[in-house]
Amino acid sequence: MNVYLDHAATTPVDPRVLQAMMPFFSEHPGNASSLHAFGQEARRAVDQARAEVAAAVGARPAEVVFTSGATESDNLAVLGVAFASRGRHILTSAIEHHAVLEACHVLEAQGYAVTRVPVDARGVVDPDDVRRALRPDTVLVSVMAANNEIGTLQPVAEIGRLTRERQIPFHSDATQLVGAMPVDVDELGVDLLSLSAHKRYGPKGVGALYIRPGVPLMPLQRGGSHERGRRGGTENVPGIVGLGAALRIAVREMAEEHRRVTALRDRLMRGALALPGAQLNGDPGRRLANNVNLSFDGTDSQSLVMGLDLHGVAASAGSACSSGSMEPSHVLVALGLAPQRAASAVRLTVGRTTTDADISYALDALRDVVDRLRAAA
Amino acid sequence: MNVYLDHAATTPVDPRVLQAMMPFFSEHPGNASSLHAFGQEARRAVDQARAEVAAAVGARPAEVVFTSGATESDNLAVLGVAFASRGRHILTSAIEHHAVLEACHVLEAQGYAVTRVPVDARGVVDPDDVRRALRPDTVLVSVMAANNEIGTLQPVAEIGRLTRERQIPFHSDATQLVGAMPVDVDELGVDLLSLSAHKRYGPKGVGALYIRPGVPLMPLQRGGSHERGRRGGTENVPGIVGLGAALRIAVREMAEEHRRVTALRDRLMRGALALPGAQLNGDPGRRLANNVNLSFDGTDSQSLVMGLDLHGVAASAGSACSSGSMEPSHVLVALGLAPQRAASAVRLTVGRTTTDADISYALDALRDVVDRLRAAA
Repeated sequence: MNVYLDHAATTPVDPRVLQAMMPFFSEHPGNASSLHAFGQEARRAVDQARAEVAAAVGARPAEVVFTSGATESDNLAVLGVAFASRGRHILTSAIEHHAVLEACHVLEAQGYAVTRVPVDARGVVDPDDVRRALRPDTVLVSVMAANNEIGTLQPVAEIGRLTRERQIPFHSDATQLVGAMPVDVDELGVDLLSLSAHKRYGPKGVGALYIRPGVPLMPLQRGGSHERGRRGGTENVPGIVGLGAALRIAVREMAEEHRRVTALRDRLMRGALALPGAQLNGDPGRRLANNVNLSFDGTDSQSLVMGLDLHGVAASAGSACSSGSMEPSHVLVALGLAPQRAASAVRLTVGRTTTDADISYALDALRDVVDRLRAAA
Repeated sequence: MNVYLDHAATTPVDPRVLQAMMPFFSEHPGNASSLHAFGQEARRAVDQARAEVAAAVGARPAEVVFTSGATESDNLAVLGVAFASRGRHILTSAIEHHAVLEACHVLEAQGYAVTRVPVDARGVVDPDDVRRALRPDTVLVSVMAANNEIGTLQPVAEIGRLTRERQIPFHSDATQLVGAMPVDVDELGVDLLSLSAHKRYGPKGVGALYIRPGVPLMPLQRGGSHERGRRGGTENVPGIVGLGAALRIAVREMAEEHRRVTALRDRLMRGALALPGAQLNGDPGRRLANNVNLSFDGTDSQSLVMGLDLHGVAASAGSACSSGSMEPSHVLVALGLAPQRAASAVRLTVGRTTTDADISYALDALRDVVDRLRAAA
C-alpha cells in the first residue's frame, strides 16, 4: 500500500486542473505575447487565470505577477523591494523558507542589515518583537503566513497593522496557506504575497506574487515586457491556467475540505501522540489543518522517514527543500527544542487524496517503525 | 483555415512529449528532493531528462541546470558569470535576445562596460570584431547561435576559438538552434549554452543552461540546494521530463525534419519573394531552416500581421517578446535596413506540423494582404 503523507512538499495535480491545462499544450499552443489569434487565445487564458488567482487572495488581476514558483516569488519580493528602495534594513523571522532566508543572505553580502525575529517554543512570531525591531531604514518586513515544516500560523494581520502604520512594505510567503484557508491581502495588510500551484493540486513550475500598487519593485528576471515589465519571459500558459484552476477549485471547496482534512489530521495526530515518547512540534491549535510534526524519543528523523518509506508511507524530515541535509532544520532549532528532539522529528501532511484507511495504515506503520528503531538502538 | 507560421515564437507540444509528461502530473507527483519512493521516482525522471538534454548538446548530465526557460538561462549566464567574476567588461552582439540585452543593461547600471559588436547587412557577427573588442578585463562573451527574428546563424565555433585561447567564458543563446541542427558544446567551444523546451515542441516554462565545469557562476534564484546549489526551487518534474523527451525526439528526427522543413520554407520563401517589392531580411543561405523574414514595399509590419491573421495565418513582426511595440526591432535596425524596409518586415517560421497545403494557403493570403495594403495606401 502506498500512502502519500507529504502534501506540504508537493501535491498531485487534481485531474480537473489537468483537464483545464490540457488544451493549452498542443491544441492552443499560442505565445500569449503574439498578436495573432493563436496568441490572443493564449492571452485570454492567462487573463482568466490571473483573475482567478487575484480572486483567491482578494486582489485585483493587475496586482498578480506570474512566476516560476514560490521560490522565485519570494526572491522577487525580498530582493526586488530591497533593490528598489533606499534603506538598508530588512526584518524577517527565524523560521522563513529558504527562498526568503537565502535572499536575505544575498542582501547581507551586499551590506544590508537583516534582523531575524525569534519565535516562541510553539513557533509563533510575537508582533511586539517585530515592532521593536523596526528601524527608520527598514525597507521590507517578510514574515510567512504558515510555516511549511510545523504548520504554525503567524499573526500576519497584526504585523500588517504595524507595517501599514509605518508605510513599510510587508511581504508574506503564503505558499502553504493560499487555497487552504481564506486569504485576503487587505485584511492581512500585506503588500506582497507569494503563492505556488504545486502545493495546492496545481502543476509544478508556476506560482505568483501579489504586489500592491505603489510598492517599489525592481524586476529580477529580464527579457521583454511580459507581466507589465515585472517579469520577462514567455508566459507558461498551461501552467498559469493550471494555477488559476487549482485556486478556483481550492477556494470553492475550502470549507468542506478544511473540515475533512482537519478530521483526518486530528486522527493521525491523536494516534501518533498516543505512541510512547511522542511529542508534538509546533502549536497544537494554531496550525495548518493538514500538518502533523512529531518527535519520537530514541529515534532519528532519517530513520523514521526511511522506515516509513519501507512501508510505502511518504513522510518528511523537515522540508523537502533541505532533505539530504543531516542538520536539524533551522525551524526546529528556532523553537529551542532539545537536540535529540529536533533530530527525531518527522512531518506528516495529509491532503485531498488522503483517506481514513490511509491514516489507519500510516499509524500502524509509524508504530512499527518507532518500535523497531527503539529496539535496534 | 488556420495556418500557424510562428514556430519561432512557440511550438505546440508534440503529443509524444505530452505523453511522456503525463504520468508526472497526478500519478507520480513526487517532489524530486524528497527522500521517499515518490520523491525518488521523480528524481529518476529528472535524472533521465538531464541525460537526454546533455546528450542533445554533447555535454555531461552534471553540466546541465534546469531553469524556467531560456530567459532565465540567459539571465543566469550573463549575470551569474559577471557577478562571480572580477573584471567589469562584457562583450555581446547588437542582435541578441532581450534576455541577454536586458541582463547587460542591468550590468551597465552597476558600472560594467558592455561592448555590442555590430553585424553585417545580413546579420552576421564578424569574429574579427569580437577579437578586437576583447579586453583584459572581459569576463564574458555572449553571442547567440541563431537569431530568433531573421534566423541568421552566427560563427559560434570561430568565436569559441578566440575565447578559449584567452580563457574567457563564452555564452551562446542557442534556443532557436538546439534540436534543429547538431549542437556540440565542445565543437562550438562554448562554456554556457541556453536552451528552451517550448521552441522545440516541448512545454512552456522550462529550459536549461549548460555550464562547463570551472566556469564561475553565482546562482540567481535562491532557496534550497536544488540543481547542485545552482538554482533553488522545486524541480518542475513534468516540464523537465517534457524538455528531455522533446530534445530526444528532435535529435532523433533531426536529419529528416531538417530536409522537410527546409523544402517547405524554400517554397514559402520563393513564393513570397516572387511578390512585387519583396525583399529577404537576413542571410539567404546561412539561416535556420524554418525561417523566412521579408519586407514588402508599401506595407507595414503590424498591418501585415493583422491582415494575415484575418486569413487565419499566424505570423510575427519581430519577435513575440517585443510584439505590441511599434518600434522596428533592434535586430532589423542593426542590419542597417532603410526605415521603411525595417518597418514592413514580417517573420514566417514553419515547423513540424506545417504541410504543403499550409504553404499554398499562406502564399495566397500573403499576396492578398500585400495587394490590399498597397491598394489602401
